[in-house]
Amino acid sequence: MSEKARKKVMAVANELNYKPNALARGLIMNKTNLVGIAMKAVQNPFYHETLAIFTKKLKEIGYSVLFVNSENEEIQQEEINQFLEYNVEAIIVTDAILSSGLVDKLSKAQIPVILFNRRDESSDSYSVTCDNINAATNIADYFYQRGHKHNVFISGLLNTSTNQERLTGFKRYFDEKNMEIDVIHGDYTYEKAYHLTYEFLKSGKKIDALFGANDVTALGALDAIKAYGLSVPEDVEVIGFDDIKMASWPNNNLSTWSQPIEEMVDGVINILIDPNSVVERDQYIQGNLVKRKTTVHT
Amino acid sequence: MSEKARKKVMAVANELNYKPNALARGLIMNKTNLVGIAMKAVQNPFYHETLAIFTKKLKEIGYSVLFVNSENEEIQQEEINQFLEYNVEAIIVTDAILSSGLVDKLSKAQIPVILFNRRDESSDSYSVTCDNINAATNIADYFYQRGHKHNVFISGLLNTSTNQERLTGFKRYFDEKNMEIDVIHGDYTYEKAYHLTYEFLKSGKKIDALFGANDVTALGALDAIKAYGLSVPEDVEVIGFDDIKMASWPNNNLSTWSQPIEEMVDGVINILIDPNSVVERDQYIQGNLVKRKTTVHT
Repeated sequence: MSEKARKKVMAVANELNYKPNALARGLIMNKTNLVGIAMKAVQNPFYHETLAIFTKKLKEIGYSVLFVNSENEEIQQEEINQFLEYNVEAIIVTDAILSSGLVDKLSKAQIPVILFNRRDESSDSYSVTCDNINAATNIADYFYQRGHKHNVFISGLLNTSTNQERLTGFKRYFDEKNMEIDVIHGDYTYEKAYHLTYEFLKSGKKIDALFGANDVTALGALDAIKAYGLSVPEDVEVIGFDDIKMASWPNNNLSTWSQPIEEMVDGVINILIDPNSVVERDQYIQGNLVKRKTTVHT
Repeated sequence: MSEKARKKVMAVANELNYKPNALARGLIMNKTNLVGIAMKAVQNPFYHETLAIFTKKLKEIGYSVLFVNSENEEIQQEEINQFLEYNVEAIIVTDAILSSGLVDKLSKAQIPVILFNRRDESSDSYSVTCDNINAATNIADYFYQRGHKHNVFISGLLNTSTNQERLTGFKRYFDEKNMEIDVIHGDYTYEKAYHLTYEFLKSGKKIDALFGANDVTALGALDAIKAYGLSVPEDVEVIGFDDIKMASWPNNNLSTWSQPIEEMVDGVINILIDPNSVVERDQYIQGNLVKRKTTVHT
């Protein structure tokens, strides 16, 4: 809306003594108090907890959430159009990818794009993630100190920054010790992790310790290890990533790296409130290892 | 906005050759294409699948979703205010309660309230639910035909219509056979179901067959039964409700009543598109028993 048009509408509104609701304010003042959240995962409870915390914290500062469930790995123009139609003030993307072309376009329209639990160096987006490299290094160090020879990483989707960083941290640590690791290529689903881990064991390969790229993946691997007849943690130690609610369920009791969701959401909200004050476009939050019954911890 | 005001704004818009976005259309035409969805559950994957399907199907008919995560059992006025501020055309409520006063207020403002997986006879809301009574009757009949003497219902939250209907159907069937059932009073969480089922068994009470008010509850009970040292399905048969993704995970393999989410969502969308064409305010959709490895099915 041009400045001239805006003024004319405001004049009409004043004349009519019109008390604007959020829609009218959005049009007249360019202030909609709407934030777009785009999310893909249906299967990963981590993102459901995330959505609940975002909605709660955004409400506290007077923002409402326009929600888009992205069906593709890469968010499509038409999904972004939904956000633009409603003049969202910022777009939060969790587990999907936004082309750098789209991010730049949004950037020019002064709509910041903030990635949550994803990083993309090729675009102008902001990001808040757990310090995945440090987390994976810590997990590798635990396995190494326990004296394990056959260390396995079961991956999530290969093109995600979370998976890349967690693999990098894990592999680099063992590289420095001149030790090989095995990588099972999963896709962040339970089913694939279960199937591939079972096949891995059946082919005669050994696992002393396994690091899952996320909890859902680690739970799939854990159940396959048990189904194969091995004991956890006696034969195999398992560590996941996220600390979703069901990691603590008695039947799982999964040791895992806890992602500090609340802190990460706070990081995103700080960017939203004042993008210009942000010094580092990529923010890293530390987490911690939650020790349950899939590890020994002598 | 009065008719006079609307006409004046439209005239200004025409004069300025202004191409309205969704916000402007919302103001001028009273047509925002926005639907409010209020949801409470963080722990139940059933509602995450539901949200994804709603978002997808609403997008197909040109609607966007304003999402509110209700923190309380009963949705608060301020949460509804968020919806009103943005002129949503309808409000969909999944696992929470809306006071009949609020529903009437919204009704008068011509904003239909549609309950998904909940029913409330005391208010003017529409509802789409699974035929819970019929489902529970079928499950009771299966247990009866198998000759079980100690039949247990582990409940969800007592004040929810889903829990009431599932208990009613189950209990009524056994009443007619002059058989008692036991009820364990859970709250739809895994933790409570696990704890209470374990205590129930420890106190010396018997379970031949158990019906969980939802899958999360049934999984908690299932794990407690296994942890207590009983075999499933040999010692105890277990049936859940919902057919969430993890019911089919190999380690669970939970038999369950599948809720036809897609059909239920379609039912809601039909109401949304043309509330005046709806004959029955409460719509019931049938589901079916999915037989996995927590039942015998000879």
